[in-house]
This record gives sequence, structure tokens and C-alpha cells, in this order.
Amino acid sequence: MAPRGRPRDAQVDERVLRIAAALIFERGYAGMSIDEVAEQAGVAKTTLYRRWPTKDHLAVAVVARLQEDDEITDTGDIRVDLVNYLDKIAAGLNRMRLAGHNQTPSAGVVGELVAAAAKHDDIGRLTREQYGRRNAIALALIERARLRGELRADLDAEALFDQLAGALYYRVIITGAPVDRAYAERLVASALEGNLTCH
Amino acid sequence: MAPRGRPRDAQVDERVLRIAAALIFERGYAGMSIDEVAEQAGVAKTTLYRRWPTKDHLAVAVVARLQEDDEITDTGDIRVDLVNYLDKIAAGLNRMRLAGHNQTPSAGVVGELVAAAAKHDDIGRLTREQYGRRNAIALALIERARLRGELRADLDAEALFDQLAGALYYRVIITGAPVDRAYAERLVASALEGNLTCH
Repeated sequence: MAPRGRPRDAQVDERVLRIAAALIFERGYAGMSIDEVAEQAGVAKTTLYRRWPTKDHLAVAVVARLQEDDEITDTGDIRVDLVNYLDKIAAGLNRMRLAGHNQTPSAGVVGELVAAAAKHDDIGRLTREQYGRRNAIALALIERARLRGELRADLDAEALFDQLAGALYYRVIITGAPVDRAYAERLVASALEGNLTCH
Repeated sequence: MAPRGRPRDAQVDERVLRIAAALIFERGYAGMSIDEVAEQAGVAKTTLYRRWPTKDHLAVAVVARLQEDDEITDTGDIRVDLVNYLDKIAAGLNRMRLAGHNQTPSAGVVGELVAAAAKHDDIGRLTREQYGRRNAIALALIERARLRGELRADLDAEALFDQLAGALYYRVIITGAPVDRAYAERLVASALEGNLTCH
């Protein structure tokens, strides 16, 4: 049941983002338009354009909202926690890659969002801030594992997390290789155990 | 001195790609057009459009040509070889990121190319094939280090290389963080030495 009276902005935002997400996932990036979102949400187009000046701005807000749901669990076993978190990132990337029923190994919507962040300074800044906040949570997880002695005292947390998340993005955006839980497990094993011959 | 008579296709290609690269680096993606490249190269526009149907196709060919110059050296010390190679990749990414005198931490031209690969199936396929060939050379380097006992016998070469290259692309495309030789050294140390507490 919708609340009576004028809905608060946050509720309108939530509805708009849900409708925009549904259109993107059903039809792909090209199939979403601010005008249609406004119509389906029963909101004036001018209201939407005031909040999100272009379709790129709206699409980035959709992804930011979805990523908020990717919680990091801390079980006390860093391998498990990292695999779980990478698996969530991979699932989000796969969903965007397959949006609009994209059948190719192309990055799909992920590529459009990357271009939007490169093209609009404000979107780029928002995206980088958002990843900064998101990654700070992963870095804190790694730091706790370091403090309890599970990870090396002298580790480079930033390099470690860039390697893990970066490999997923690299496959989706650049090489087109698949990403899934099995791959997340390979990544975590490689990064934690290292690759030198044991002495 | 230009050779007399009708130049061979490869020479025309080389000249066209050089001119297109200069325009992209000087003015950014938006500042390069097939028409201007044709004029500067003294080649009929129709010839260029037959070879590269869109500006995206021409830009991807420019980058493919530049990447051919990134040779991998094999000194017998895998740390040195990986750092050198990542440093070359980082330099190429920085050059594209700064094209058109881009002053922001945005991905710049890298973002445009990612979008082109996501939008045009043929460009995506070409790009993925090109990265496949390029990465096979890095995987062979890792394999040689494994065979001579420098790296673990049971290593996962694909996961290792994805982590190294992926971290560079992740910073340039997603987080906007800088990439340079010092960062390449941090990455290689983290990936080779691992992150578990030593026992």
C-alpha cells in the first residue's frame, strides 16, 4: 500500500530507481529512457530531470543503489569472507553484463556506465566516491584479519583488494572471460597463498 | 621519403593510424574524426570508411597498434619481468587517460574504448581476441618461470595475470587511483609473496 498524501522524496527516489533498474535489466541500456521511467513512476518528467540531468546520471544512481545491497560478512575466516564478497561483486557484474538479454561476452551495461563516468565529470566523481566508500569496507575487513594474525602484518591491503576486485572487472570489461564463485575461489587462493616456490 | 607510386595498404594503414593517434592524444576522443584523419593522410574518406566503418573502429585499431609495441622481456627474473611489463601497460593506460589533456582522474579515452567494445559486437570480438593474444605472451612468461622453479608448480597462471593486469585497469577505469612503476612493484610483491601469515 502506498502511503497517503505526498510521498517523501526518498520514497519517490526508491520507486524511480526500481523502475529504471527493471527497464535496464529487461531491455538493456538503450531501452531505458527518463521519459518512460517518469511515466511508469507517475512522476513529472521535470522532477526527474531536475534530480538526474541525463539518462547516464539515472543509470549510475541505479547501480549505486543496487551495490548498497552487497553486504560484507565477517565470519572471522578471511578466505570465506573474501570469496563471499567477490561472489557478490561477480553476481552484480554478471547481471549488468546480461542486461537486455545480451548474449555476447560483451561488458554490456557495465561498458556504458564506464563511458558515462569518463564522459561526465560529475558522474566520474560520484562513481569514484562511491567505490571509495565501498572499498573502505573491504579494506577494513582485511585490516581486521591482519590484526588477528590471519594475514601478514606487513601486507599491502590496497594492492590486495585491487587485485581481487580488479581481476573481476578486467574479465568482464576487457577480456570477456566468465566470472563466478569458482573463479572467486581461484583468485582468493592465488592472492592469499602467493605464487613463489615454497622454501 | 615516401616510396613512389601507389603505396601499399600496410603503409597507408600505418600513416592513418599514426595521424589518428596524434589527434586522439592531442584533443581527446571527441577531437578525432575520420574525415579529418582522411584529409591529413591524403586518403579518400571512402577508403577509410571501407576499412574502419566508424570512428570507434578506427580508435580501437589505433590502440591495438600501440599495444603491439609493448614487448615482454624475459630476463630470467620473473619479478623484474612482471614489473617491467606492468609498467608498460600502466604507461599506455596513463597516456590514454590523459589524452586531450584530461585533467581529471577520469578514465578518458580508456572509457570510450570500453564503451565501443560493449556497443559494437565486432569491436568487442576484435578487442577480446587482441587481449587474448597479448595475454598469452604474459602467460607463457609465467609458465617459463614456473618450469624453472621460480614460481610454484601448482600456480594458477590465469588468476595471477588477471590480478596484476586487472588491478591496473580497475584503478584507471573504476577508482581513478594512479598507476605507475611503484604501484606495479607493490602489485607484483603482493601477488608473488602472498598475504598469509608466514608459518
